[in-house]
Amino acid sequence: MWGGRFAEGPAAVMREINASIPFDKRLWRQDVAGSKAHAAMLGAQGIISPEDAAAILAGLETVAAGYEANGVADDLALEDIHMQTEARLAEAIGPVAGRLHTARSRNDQVATDFRLWVRDAIDETDSALAAFQEALLTRAEEHAASVMPGFTHLQSAQPVTLGHHLMAYYEMIARDRSRFADARARLNLCPLGSAALAGTGFPIDRTMTAAALGFDGPTRNSLDAVSDRDFAIDYLAAAAQCALHLSRLAEEFVLWASQPFGFVSLSDQWSTGSSIMPQKRNPDAAELVRGHSGRIIGCLTALMITMKGLPLAYSKDMQDDKPPVFEASDLLGLSIAAMTGMVSSATFRTDRMRGAAEAGFATATDLADWLVRVANIPFREAHHITGHAVKRAETLGVALDTLSLDDLKSIDARIDERVYDVLGVDASVAGRTSFGGTAPARVRAAIAVAREGRKP
Amino acid sequence: MWGGRFAEGPAAVMREINASIPFDKRLWRQDVAGSKAHAAMLGAQGIISPEDAAAILAGLETVAAGYEANGVADDLALEDIHMQTEARLAEAIGPVAGRLHTARSRNDQVATDFRLWVRDAIDETDSALAAFQEALLTRAEEHAASVMPGFTHLQSAQPVTLGHHLMAYYEMIARDRSRFADARARLNLCPLGSAALAGTGFPIDRTMTAAALGFDGPTRNSLDAVSDRDFAIDYLAAAAQCALHLSRLAEEFVLWASQPFGFVSLSDQWSTGSSIMPQKRNPDAAELVRGHSGRIIGCLTALMITMKGLPLAYSKDMQDDKPPVFEASDLLGLSIAAMTGMVSSATFRTDRMRGAAEAGFATATDLADWLVRVANIPFREAHHITGHAVKRAETLGVALDTLSLDDLKSIDARIDERVYDVLGVDASVAGRTSFGGTAPARVRAAIAVAREGRKP
Amino acid sequence: MWGGRFAEGPAAVMREINASIPFDKRLWRQDVAGSKAHAAMLGAQGIISPEDAAAILAGLETVAAGYEANGVADDLALEDIHMQTEARLAEAIGPVAGRLHTARSRNDQVATDFRLWVRDAIDETDSALAAFQEALLTRAEEHAASVMPGFTHLQSAQPVTLGHHLMAYYEMIARDRSRFADARARLNLCPLGSAALAGTGFPIDRTMTAAALGFDGPTRNSLDAVSDRDFAIDYLAAAAQCALHLSRLAEEFVLWASQPFGFVSLSDQWSTGSSIMPQKRNPDAAELVRGHSGRIIGCLTALMITMKGLPLAYSKDMQDDKPPVFEASDLLGLSIAAMTGMVSSATFRTDRMRGAAEAGFATATDLADWLVRVANIPFREAHHITGHAVKRAETLGVALDTLSLDDLKSIDARIDERVYDVLGVDASVAGRTSFGGTAPARVRAAIAVAREGRKP
Amino acid sequence: MWGGRFAEGPAAVMREINASIPFDKRLWRQDVAGSKAHAAMLGAQGIISPEDAAAILAGLETVAAGYEANGVADDLALEDIHMQTEARLAEAIGPVAGRLHTARSRNDQVATDFRLWVRDAIDETDSALAAFQEALLTRAEEHAASVMPGFTHLQSAQPVTLGHHLMAYYEMIARDRSRFADARARLNLCPLGSAALAGTGFPIDRTMTAAALGFDGPTRNSLDAVSDRDFAIDYLAAAAQCALHLSRLAEEFVLWASQPFGFVSLSDQWSTGSSIMPQKRNPDAAELVRGHSGRIIGCLTALMITMKGLPLAYSKDMQDDKPPVFEASDLLGLSIAAMTGMVSSATFRTDRMRGAAEAGFATATDLADWLVRVANIPFREAHHITGHAVKRAETLGVALDTLSLDDLKSIDARIDERVYDVLGVDASVAGRTSFGGTAPARVRAAIAVAREGRKP
Repeated sequence: MWGGRFAEGPAAVMREINASIPFDKRLWRQDVAGSKAHAAMLGAQGIISPEDAAAILAGLETVAAGYEANGVADDLALEDIHMQTEARLAEAIGPVAGRLHTARSRNDQVATDFRLWVRDAIDETDSALAAFQEALLTRAEEHAASVMPGFTHLQSAQPVTLGHHLMAYYEMIARDRSRFADARARLNLCPLGSAALAGTGFPIDRTMTAAALGFDGPTRNSLDAVSDRDFAIDYLAAAAQCALHLSRLAEEFVLWASQPFGFVSLSDQWSTGSSIMPQKRNPDAAELVRGHSGRIIGCLTALMITMKGLPLAYSKDMQDDKPPVFEASDLLGLSIAAMTGMVSSATFRTDRMRGAAEAGFATATDLADWLVRVANIPFREAHHITGHAVKRAETLGVALDTLSLDDLKSIDARIDERVYDVLGVDASVAGRTSFGGTAPARVRAAIAVAREGRKP
Repeated sequence: MWGGRFAEGPAAVMREINASIPFDKRLWRQDVAGSKAHAAMLGAQGIISPEDAAAILAGLETVAAGYEANGVADDLALEDIHMQTEARLAEAIGPVAGRLHTARSRNDQVATDFRLWVRDAIDETDSALAAFQEALLTRAEEHAASVMPGFTHLQSAQPVTLGHHLMAYYEMIARDRSRFADARARLNLCPLGSAALAGTGFPIDRTMTAAALGFDGPTRNSLDAVSDRDFAIDYLAAAAQCALHLSRLAEEFVLWASQPFGFVSLSDQWSTGSSIMPQKRNPDAAELVRGHSGRIIGCLTALMITMKGLPLAYSKDMQDDKPPVFEASDLLGLSIAAMTGMVSSATFRTDRMRGAAEAGFATATDLADWLVRVANIPFREAHHITGHAVKRAETLGVALDTLSLDDLKSIDARIDERVYDVLGVDASVAGRTSFGGTAPARVRAAIAVAREGRKP
Repeated sequence: MWGGRFAEGPAAVMREINASIPFDKRLWRQDVAGSKAHAAMLGAQGIISPEDAAAILAGLETVAAGYEANGVADDLALEDIHMQTEARLAEAIGPVAGRLHTARSRNDQVATDFRLWVRDAIDETDSALAAFQEALLTRAEEHAASVMPGFTHLQSAQPVTLGHHLMAYYEMIARDRSRFADARARLNLCPLGSAALAGTGFPIDRTMTAAALGFDGPTRNSLDAVSDRDFAIDYLAAAAQCALHLSRLAEEFVLWASQPFGFVSLSDQWSTGSSIMPQKRNPDAAELVRGHSGRIIGCLTALMITMKGLPLAYSKDMQDDKPPVFEASDLLGLSIAAMTGMVSSATFRTDRMRGAAEAGFATATDLADWLVRVANIPFREAHHITGHAVKRAETLGVALDTLSLDDLKSIDARIDERVYDVLGVDASVAGRTSFGGTAPARVRAAIAVAREGRKP
Repeated sequence: MWGGRFAEGPAAVMREINASIPFDKRLWRQDVAGSKAHAAMLGAQGIISPEDAAAILAGLETVAAGYEANGVADDLALEDIHMQTEARLAEAIGPVAGRLHTARSRNDQVATDFRLWVRDAIDETDSALAAFQEALLTRAEEHAASVMPGFTHLQSAQPVTLGHHLMAYYEMIARDRSRFADARARLNLCPLGSAALAGTGFPIDRTMTAAALGFDGPTRNSLDAVSDRDFAIDYLAAAAQCALHLSRLAEEFVLWASQPFGFVSLSDQWSTGSSIMPQKRNPDAAELVRGHSGRIIGCLTALMITMKGLPLAYSKDMQDDKPPVFEASDLLGLSIAAMTGMVSSATFRTDRMRGAAEAGFATATDLADWLVRVANIPFREAHHITGHAVKRAETLGVALDTLSLDDLKSIDARIDERVYDVLGVDASVAGRTSFGGTAPARVRAAIAVAREGRKP
């Protein structure tokens, strides 16, 4: 490829460290698409003849068909997908293939290919997240009024509904989708035509190639265009945050599937057994989703470190951009699919959830609020009185709503029998009607709004 | 604060690990603003009396004035800024202060305060970045036609202009600003009224408090609202990417200020000397900006790890959200200011730059392109011929444009005297007129567009 | 300091980004110690006169006393602790202070100071970890035979003892201590005398200064000595691994303190309440320890990134070495102390633990093993048979050891009444006598070995 | 495998996310070795019959031969290398294969296999690093007296020798090797026999299996043994630090190969050209080594995050331990080999280095030191005087040693003609004879000591 000036070929280790074909062959569709757009433009602008353009376009179809049928060979001598495609093209159509590389460089070519790939990955992720949201909505609707303990510090705090809990994840995923959408909008400019780093003197039409590849337009600075991997980092940052959200739900599935919680039964399809302990039913998929978040953050970290302190323009370090993106994309795709499957197929043990909600003095805040409302006591004082009531119930080993009125009155004389209206978990949940609150009516309204917003 | 049920106070280590006041006191302005919005709403909704509301609002003014005058005390017994403010308020207005905490919790309070703080940080960062862009534009305009070597792999690749090079950073910063803007838009919903985790039964008006605090509206799910730190991670991710861009320019300043490059002289204001070597003039600020990128990425990593696998809703781990954000914000603010100062005050040694551009066979591509255009040779073949020309020049120890025509013709007979038109660096630069290319006319056009877009 | 050649002072931002005194003042003890060792050596070698050496040593005592009494001022004009100390010394003893900097540079000085500080931090960490191990041993001994469910995948797997579980952490901490010890051994060479980067022509005695400061000897290459921050990374890597171990125990405390588990009650001293929910008793310290692990890993990441790609020798980026080390050291110190306090004071609810162990078919492996031993069935087949037994018990809603013999025989006829000897949790635990196993006798033996190894 | 209790098989996504065989097949040699040690011990202890043990051992040979010949199939249904090997064994020898899994679990099996693999990786890394050190020593010896500028802040600081510079890397690598050695020592205990988590009741001999596999002994706590991945993190931490050292040398090769520096010419074997710019000779391998450091740090980060907050004992998250270790090992192996090749084959352009050393006032410290020694001026004052001399030379555009004596005397009258003895770069270098200094005699002594220490 650059033989004109080199007397000797590369050392074996050099060849191995240098070759990207083992991983960048995943870009073959994008590489062919970019080359076709470039060839068509070269022809349209008269930079190459119409015949040459036609020959190249036909040849690229042949190359693509070959890749589709046989895959892309790991030929280290043709170090990357660009040289690979160019070599295949030369086999197909002869020396005219050499005209394809007019007015471009591998630097703008790989930047274009990789943007196209990341854009596809974003679109696939968005679809998968939409399906996951659908699963959340379905189960949330089913459990809009199913009471469970809401936890803070993993301590029983206040009763909530399972539907409300699942809708919290709906919100997180909505943010994830908006983050991917932002990344996509920022990515969607075409580097092709930036050439090696400085642009070109050939009368190319960058708007034409950009449009052909679905971009909003060409990038604005050639040095930046070939040095920039922000789009890959944006993707990884969005993927990492999404993975963190999934890690939280995964943690909850692991907790909920444990015997002490017993809030969920995973189906056989989403459990595994043990090679030694016959009674086991392990939530492996949830654990792997949780674990994968570590690797996805590692991918983000890796690329950020790699980009640190690189002078302009292209440096070969940037070849290390693809493995982390491919890895994160694979792991995230599996993680979303797994959580969708688990949410859809899980059996929520609502009896256990309700039991736990009733056991933990979770309506203590309702008592304090009642004191504020009915007896007009400042909240801080009401909180203090309620603390004594909890202590009494704890000592007696009973729930708050089974403390006798005498007991309650001995703690504070302003308490009367109306208090029992707020001490049950259903009453507690039904009462939290503030916007965004856990009252079943609020949860159902939130689901309706979500469904509305998702209509085409 | 929760004495009703606790017999013993915390251990000393517990008190120390638990207290956030040493760092969250930076939130005092936001905490007071949030409390005022909440008190006004409680009054407007009749949850507390107008008199109480007025007393609380006046008291909060007093507290704020005290903070402004004396700072916030590091009182570990009042573990965080919320308890601190509540205690100060009680000192100022007595027990009525206890009504302020009606229908809210520290969980929604801290989420609100911290969002407000991050929003301010975004706005300040955006202003600083705008000033940095202005500095880049000014110097780019000045040097729109100053030739320097464009590097890839830090090897002289093709001549570019310094203006074009600086405009590459303009583009990066434009992306940074759009990233911060995206983060701001996603952040701008108000958690206040989510209470501890489940919402509240008091008839609060969340739209009113949201509007009072400049939010676009209330958050939609109370569990999510108190568990979510996406906005902090979004901020850190944007900060990390911005820091990476700065690290690249910093690396270039360090390189350019080195004796072998000699492309830039830093002013005394932006250099330091040595305690032992009297001749030194060190680019410390550039190095620190480069180094700070590591710490800012570390901050992002830290918060992502902290959030991993946390079950809903609030967990105390999330108190570790603030130190990384504060640290990153301080480091990024200094870094942007330092790079703005360095860019504005640097003396670019354009003679050295031009000399380096002329020395490295940087117009070899121009020769290859000329062969394609004039002799209609496929680019790959032209590339090969040019390789031989470079080898000849290298052997003779001369520049490409001082190779004799005989020498050139002996390499390829199709070369004629017109080739000398493209072998000089000014011709090379002027010729790269593709959109986004380095031709001075293109650079000036890009600057004009940038200035246009920045008009109010 | 380097005024001879600079016409102008630094810009305000330059001064601020450049100054390290706000954080490196923590090195004052080490800076004074290093200076004293250097001055004594200069005197002993005749590089300065005995009188000058004596004056400097006395002056350094004065400076140290001032620091001890009044702290170190945040004077940005004296940008670091070294200039600060030199300025204080000049105030104390006049121009002779200027002889102290003979044959050294801030580059070797800071490398020495920081090694000394990290060495102290290692020693303090080791003491704290030893105390933590002592707490683990005490509680492990107390609970050598207390049965709890051993989990894998957070599913009840096999019964173990709480003592065995706590001893697992003893082992982790033992590895942590060995890692810190390795770091200390590798760190313990003295950079002083490497001067700026190249050594010096003065007839210094590096062995003397190394010995005076407790080092094993001088570093071997001056360029490396001033460029190296491996010792700080080693410290951070050890700290991060230790923090990960603590994060696992912290996670368990959070789980165990939850109502569904109920395995542990934290004392009032190690719990906090809620500003809104009076019934809460939150394991804040455990959560913060878990969260801190994220920040400590962030510190490690930060310094590694900062060091990436720095050419030799000293670069100012390396000033960013100290904040992450100081932060990690503070966080780790608090974390170890908190876990020590929690382990020592926790009430383990052994009744709940035993109940959970009995509830989850945790002795199924014992049944399988019994089939292998008694009926000589290959393990894989025994595992299969046991799976059917568990299914039967699950269907009937009973524990394995309350399945009737008829039921068991109907699953496999080779089962006889002796099987009940292995189906109870105490028998199960007592039977696992392999080295490192959970049998109480084994646990007690492990404790004894641990205590033995810890004797002075 | 656990069919006895499961009615349905796993979902397709479950199968895919769960299977580790695509990557853990790299463990096949270790898995077979571990199984052989276990089978032999079971036979020796009479837990299985001698005939069964012999059959299993022979069968494992057959399985290994099959793997060696045909590789390991990516059969997701046999999810990992352990099930794969067990299945292959059953095909080879029938149901007796089922006896192999007596008294072990996949949990202790994978912990053992992976330790063995990491131990092998450490040994290979150590050999590669030894070869790299040899290359450094060879070139350092060759250039023990070749003068180059020593840089701090990438500013010319003081002259050093290239040999001294290369020996700085020798020291770093020595620390790396000691770090890997520490990791190996800490790793070298055998988990086998810890079974699922609690040990076993079978009368196994863990010392025997440990010895057979080259371990120093068995691990001490079964819960810890199956939960621990410290050894993998230790390996990654050592790999990350080593990669950082390589990144620094790689940065220097990139700098030195640039036209402005011109300190090094890379051979054709270690350069690449450009697809568009025929004059290019890019230091790709150095850039990739620098870039790889980012990915290796990413691997470390990934595993640390994955392990954060996992309760005991084994969790499936831990299956994410292997990909980062495998990736880091591959990248580090290539990086060391590449740097060894580059160092061995590079042409150091000592004329350019010397020229740069002479150009940058690098002997200013020598002048200051001379003033201290000869005129007994305090160093701080000497530093100031020298600053004026540099300023004068800078103004006149001459080197320090070509300033006239009159010029020098006008700056300070105490200067006399002897000063010219110290102002040349050779004199400067030769004079820095302190231990660890750059004087050629010191460098040669350091090389001799290094060679001595490396003798068998």
